[in-house]
Amino acid sequence: MAEIGHGGKEIVERILEPKEAVERIKGLKSIPVRDQIAKEVINIGYGFFTPLQGFMGKDDLDSVVKTMKLKDGTIWSIPILFDLSEAEVSDYGIKAGDTVLLTYEDNPLAIFEIEEIYTYDKKEICQSVFGTTEEKHPGCARTYKYKDKFLGGKITLVNRPKINPPFEPFFIPPLQMRKIFREKGWQRIVAHQTRNVPHTGHEWLMKGAWLQAYGELPIEKPIVGVLVNAIIGEKRKGDYIDEAIILTHQKLNDAGYFGPHNHMVSLTFWDMRYAGPKEAIFHSMLRTNLGLTHHMFGRDHAGVGDYYDPYDAHRLIISVQDELRIKPTFSMNWLYCPHCGEVTNEGLCNHKDEWQKFSGTLIRSIVMDGVKPPRLIFRPEVFDLVMECAEKYGFGSPFVTDEYLEKRTPVFTIPPLKA
Amino acid sequence: MAEIGHGGKEIVERILEPKEAVERIKGLKSIPVRDQIAKEVINIGYGFFTPLQGFMGKDDLDSVVKTMKLKDGTIWSIPILFDLSEAEVSDYGIKAGDTVLLTYEDNPLAIFEIEEIYTYDKKEICQSVFGTTEEKHPGCARTYKYKDKFLGGKITLVNRPKINPPFEPFFIPPLQMRKIFREKGWQRIVAHQTRNVPHTGHEWLMKGAWLQAYGELPIEKPIVGVLVNAIIGEKRKGDYIDEAIILTHQKLNDAGYFGPHNHMVSLTFWDMRYAGPKEAIFHSMLRTNLGLTHHMFGRDHAGVGDYYDPYDAHRLIISVQDELRIKPTFSMNWLYCPHCGEVTNEGLCNHKDEWQKFSGTLIRSIVMDGVKPPRLIFRPEVFDLVMECAEKYGFGSPFVTDEYLEKRTPVFTIPPLKA
Repeated sequence: MAEIGHGGKEIVERILEPKEAVERIKGLKSIPVRDQIAKEVINIGYGFFTPLQGFMGKDDLDSVVKTMKLKDGTIWSIPILFDLSEAEVSDYGIKAGDTVLLTYEDNPLAIFEIEEIYTYDKKEICQSVFGTTEEKHPGCARTYKYKDKFLGGKITLVNRPKINPPFEPFFIPPLQMRKIFREKGWQRIVAHQTRNVPHTGHEWLMKGAWLQAYGELPIEKPIVGVLVNAIIGEKRKGDYIDEAIILTHQKLNDAGYFGPHNHMVSLTFWDMRYAGPKEAIFHSMLRTNLGLTHHMFGRDHAGVGDYYDPYDAHRLIISVQDELRIKPTFSMNWLYCPHCGEVTNEGLCNHKDEWQKFSGTLIRSIVMDGVKPPRLIFRPEVFDLVMECAEKYGFGSPFVTDEYLEKRTPVFTIPPLKA
Repeated sequence: MAEIGHGGKEIVERILEPKEAVERIKGLKSIPVRDQIAKEVINIGYGFFTPLQGFMGKDDLDSVVKTMKLKDGTIWSIPILFDLSEAEVSDYGIKAGDTVLLTYEDNPLAIFEIEEIYTYDKKEICQSVFGTTEEKHPGCARTYKYKDKFLGGKITLVNRPKINPPFEPFFIPPLQMRKIFREKGWQRIVAHQTRNVPHTGHEWLMKGAWLQAYGELPIEKPIVGVLVNAIIGEKRKGDYIDEAIILTHQKLNDAGYFGPHNHMVSLTFWDMRYAGPKEAIFHSMLRTNLGLTHHMFGRDHAGVGDYYDPYDAHRLIISVQDELRIKPTFSMNWLYCPHCGEVTNEGLCNHKDEWQKFSGTLIRSIVMDGVKPPRLIFRPEVFDLVMECAEKYGFGSPFVTDEYLEKRTPVFTIPPLKA
């Protein structure tokens, strides 16, 4: 059975088995890649980026910049680029038509069939993707850091990443994910994008989206599931540590606030671009490839600063909804209402003067105080686990510190290749 | 603008203005009608029963019994019949082709253009509508009490009912209701069928249905409303008194658990038939005529005893959904989970061993004790109002007693007709 992903294209899986890989890489020049590129190579190989089979050539990049579509007409919002400096191109002695081996941490990662080497105006990319060319926008900053030459061409993984504890169970690529959904019998699956430890506001965002996706389905038993898909990528100081994010979401399931019948947790490797609306489109593409049917979008999805109107992402999604294979569920804020005595929704409850909104700052200060908050704000099992993660993985802190950045176990490593 | 109701037919409104009414009833024979028939006359006149313009003739009845459709092909599930005994027909000296005046409490109610007088096998009606011919089924009992002759023909109201306090604001016929919905800007409106004082389980049923109807709507502001449509009809001892039902639902709105932006309360006069699936269809027809787009159906909707499987109503609705102009939202149970510390849904929470389900009996015993329950079970404002209603309208009890049945102010009266 063909697994159909974004753009109606069959899910890409470009991974060689070790025996063939060992043969195929013989004699290839090696080019080491940095962390971001390694993650994107993995995503291409496993089909997270379907229909992309490799890094973009100039035609695709130009088409994405100018029309938000690949040159074949498929919606695509964020360029996937492989960059080298002119000096590197020259030092490696590579040219269009060459095939090279990409390595990560000195081990073989993927075969890269270089189809073209080109340049492109980074400001034009920034203006299109981020709506700004300002260097203080983190997406622009990342783009400006690309070196001057882009290399387009197909990627084939020669080595599967080793996912390190405690992340192993959560790396579930598209084909495997779709198999799990079929086993669970889920017919509608709604994506929850997260980089947070969940408070009850997040929990009810998911519960509300579950109800929204449940909609008018004429069924006796729930066949709707929520997939928490944590974005694991570059960390900044003050972020929650990855281990706490993923394990606490799983804890909501293990502790019964959800159950295996309606909820699961996974991760996708991706360095956030903070592209707001364009990143919302990108997330919907990723989750389509994972087999999801619905995607939650809250206010200012994947935004940063005040670059985007809180509903720009919604508007862009709506404008191309017919070309996406995933339906947006639009989330309103959930908050704690002391009058109702419970978590409720700003669209439902009218005790506006009494509402206590969940703010990242509030929750952060609760966590920092280390005093267990009320279960209607933060589930006790989640709180305990945050503290445990701080000790076990965070060098005493649930938030990213310099020490964490320096000493943490990486989420994945690339092992030596053995036939 | 034509207002389109059930079956795609324009909303019926057959009501004469007093001046014309006084002229038209001159010289007509008077036939007094009992309470059930008066309510159905009012419903026909105001278009609650669109496309019916009167009581059913034999062809329509036969078609409904055999195919669940009127003879013009419109889905219709419960016969609307006007009955007289053979002796009455003879005593009144009426025959097909006659026009008579129907009176209620000695005042003029409606003109009835008798088109035919016929008989029909009541057991056949019962088997079709209730799936049983057992006399202990309250719908069968009501059917067997019909006298032997049925009269079909058009109804025209000559007099509007006077709705007595505290019910006046809640009688909102189809054309007026649709105007209100337009003013509120609601695009999706979901019906909550009730004959209960609401506990938090009911409140969340409505809130959940609101989220379900909200669904994938690409909107910034909520444009979904819940209409509580209380069925006001024959009471049995032990039921909540009508005043408590309707006022407490309004109280949920006034006290901010909902607000005018997402919730309103109205009533429909109807003696429940307890026809389960067929009554579910009937309710969906009524609410279509009121301008609603969605209808909540829970377990064993309008059922009685163990005559129907809890999901028979759902199955029947699904089987004819394409012919209805209203979409079902299927409700799961909401319950109190002490582990979550809040009201939650059996499809969401997995603390099955700890669930405290809301039972009518539990809530009833809370109300009888007169001790204010926790706000997560029963809203304090609702509780206080139930007690107030008991004093003000219930002769000391929030439940129907013999004294209430005997002494209560009727919900509506028919005033003298003045030109």
